[in-house]
Amino acid sequence: MKYADRMENLNASEIRELLKVTDRPEVISFAGGLPAAELFPIEEMAAASMTVLKSNGEKALQYSTTEGYLPLRKWIAERENSRIGTALTEENIIITHGSQQALDLIGKLLINKDDVVLCESPTYLSALNVFKTFEGKILEVQTDDEGMIVSDLERLLETTENVKLLYVIPTFQNPSGKTWSLKRKQQILEVANRYDVAIIEDAPYEELRYSGESTLPMFSFPRSENVIRTGSFSKILCPGLRLGWIAAAPEVVEKLVLIKQSTDLQCNTLAQMQIHQFIQDNDIDAHIVRLIETYRLRRDAAISAIEKYFPKNIRYTHPEGGLFIWLELPEEINTTDLLEKSLKRNVAFVSGESFYAEQPKYNTMRLNFSCMDEEKIDAGIMILGELVTEELVE
Amino acid sequence: MKYADRMENLNASEIRELLKVTDRPEVISFAGGLPAAELFPIEEMAAASMTVLKSNGEKALQYSTTEGYLPLRKWIAERENSRIGTALTEENIIITHGSQQALDLIGKLLINKDDVVLCESPTYLSALNVFKTFEGKILEVQTDDEGMIVSDLERLLETTENVKLLYVIPTFQNPSGKTWSLKRKQQILEVANRYDVAIIEDAPYEELRYSGESTLPMFSFPRSENVIRTGSFSKILCPGLRLGWIAAAPEVVEKLVLIKQSTDLQCNTLAQMQIHQFIQDNDIDAHIVRLIETYRLRRDAAISAIEKYFPKNIRYTHPEGGLFIWLELPEEINTTDLLEKSLKRNVAFVSGESFYAEQPKYNTMRLNFSCMDEEKIDAGIMILGELVTEELVE
Repeated sequence: MKYADRMENLNASEIRELLKVTDRPEVISFAGGLPAAELFPIEEMAAASMTVLKSNGEKALQYSTTEGYLPLRKWIAERENSRIGTALTEENIIITHGSQQALDLIGKLLINKDDVVLCESPTYLSALNVFKTFEGKILEVQTDDEGMIVSDLERLLETTENVKLLYVIPTFQNPSGKTWSLKRKQQILEVANRYDVAIIEDAPYEELRYSGESTLPMFSFPRSENVIRTGSFSKILCPGLRLGWIAAAPEVVEKLVLIKQSTDLQCNTLAQMQIHQFIQDNDIDAHIVRLIETYRLRRDAAISAIEKYFPKNIRYTHPEGGLFIWLELPEEINTTDLLEKSLKRNVAFVSGESFYAEQPKYNTMRLNFSCMDEEKIDAGIMILGELVTEELVE
Repeated sequence: MKYADRMENLNASEIRELLKVTDRPEVISFAGGLPAAELFPIEEMAAASMTVLKSNGEKALQYSTTEGYLPLRKWIAERENSRIGTALTEENIIITHGSQQALDLIGKLLINKDDVVLCESPTYLSALNVFKTFEGKILEVQTDDEGMIVSDLERLLETTENVKLLYVIPTFQNPSGKTWSLKRKQQILEVANRYDVAIIEDAPYEELRYSGESTLPMFSFPRSENVIRTGSFSKILCPGLRLGWIAAAPEVVEKLVLIKQSTDLQCNTLAQMQIHQFIQDNDIDAHIVRLIETYRLRRDAAISAIEKYFPKNIRYTHPEGGLFIWLELPEEINTTDLLEKSLKRNVAFVSGESFYAEQPKYNTMRLNFSCMDEEKIDAGIMILGELVTEELVE
């Protein structure tokens, strides 16, 4: 069979491959981005499913609209309005099969072969695969602790043809855990507007803040017509139902609906009604507070363990929220080799190289801290610290 | 915002637009392809959801593998084996978000810009949109009552560069309701193999046979390595959960998994486990027999009503299964105009022109008979018959 050219660009997600290994109960895994399953509101979700099927079963199991379940779209619009001060209606919202599909739909909408996508360095690796699917060229913009570096973005926009899109995760970034400053967001939006480049502002972790003060997303700024925002129920409720959304200008949503029709017709009707029912019958904010309280302890445990067990000549982020800590080890350490050793001791993480679109830093690694208790986090990071220390001694 | 070139090719599905109008209870709609909602096993699906969430809730709401839920993949492989004599294992199966997504994933796998896709005339219109998304060129192969006409396929393959794919629905085709003969399937597979062209054999309706004898699909023939088969739970269980599958050679499935990773990570975990639980706890074959008995009555009512109310100088198919009857009216009738008139009398159908990739026949129409009782079918077709008769008199 003759495959399409795009297949030459696609790589298996190292993480999803790793997840198969780390399924074993004896493995301490910092590899995935899994929410804590013990915090899923299982009883409540079961009750919501029951209510929907008993009161409205024919509708829940039937085809429905491509845009998504109207009451859920309205709810999302109103929640965004109350959180970030927008004035959205359901016409600004399309329900997607998780925020991964949001990226796929936006990629289809915007990217021609050889169009350039600019992203942070490092960035979310499964976004890279989306842009590669549409044969876009991906270039990295350098970042510092406040976000993309404005001058580097300007340099790239000045010297590069066909830049179509800027892909960014300004809050609790995957993989770095970093959060952009408000000023940097204002500057980057101004530059993007000046060069007429669309922005995907990917915001799956935004509600999981453990410390510090939040600032508004670019999507809520004046002159943000070219900003497309993506959100997800995966991190605030559960990922198994695969539901997320895109918030954008109504004419953009209309185009995305057209794309979604041919992509998969619509999202799961029952799942959309079930989540909406859950929200009606439960206090989702209280649920998110429970998540935050648990994840804060885990982040703190991870940071303490890094301080305790790792050598001093490393750099690591102190995320104010989200699921990830990013480490930069001394340059002589290759984290892919390190991973091989740590897997033998039943500890998994993701080596940083797959998160780079251009020049990988082989001495970087991503640690997820959301899906196990503090004791396990401490035990796992102790082993990683030992291995890193050994490497440096050799 | 500058959209990608592919957006110029995409059209809204007339059907999904129509569905918004036909939601009103007073409308008799032959427009959609909706299964009969009153036959959904709602209680049993609710029980299955309950069982899964109570016994395995953390797993059901968590991320899972891209390939799909293993027990469900195994079940599909075994069922295919018992139905069509294949020797599949789970390695031949990937679970998809309905068979519409199956087409999207296969399109991504195979189609470069300007690659040619050959399809039946007429064909499933939302497949056309998938191939257009990947900027394929779509050419029609002429069909008769036994399937694609071999000599027309050979002529096209002989005279066309870059033919990548043959897209066919050999059983109870959408929109025509026609079924290919065994001999024609053998001939077409032989020709496709000779020219090294892959085949998508789309089989969502196959199990809904009301009369006549089934023959095996091309996928089960010798030398069928280049045949990719798609199936769906939408028509045998319910479409709302959006679950289908692709059956193909393991190396093709492996590539499709890679594509699905970046497309949407995976299907809904709970929905996969729920359908698997339903199958364990219920007799799905008995359920399909109930569907068949109901739909047979509805097909018969539709055919009788056409005979009774339509003028004699029309042609229509007598489908042995599936959901659709196809009518070819006298050439002076434009069914898009007819639809406008029929909507005023609260009767909907789909005009045939959208089902053609190249040369539309404006005097054709598709009638769906699965989602209403015989009385309604009779009443609706009576109105259509009156309108057609009036048109001819004018």
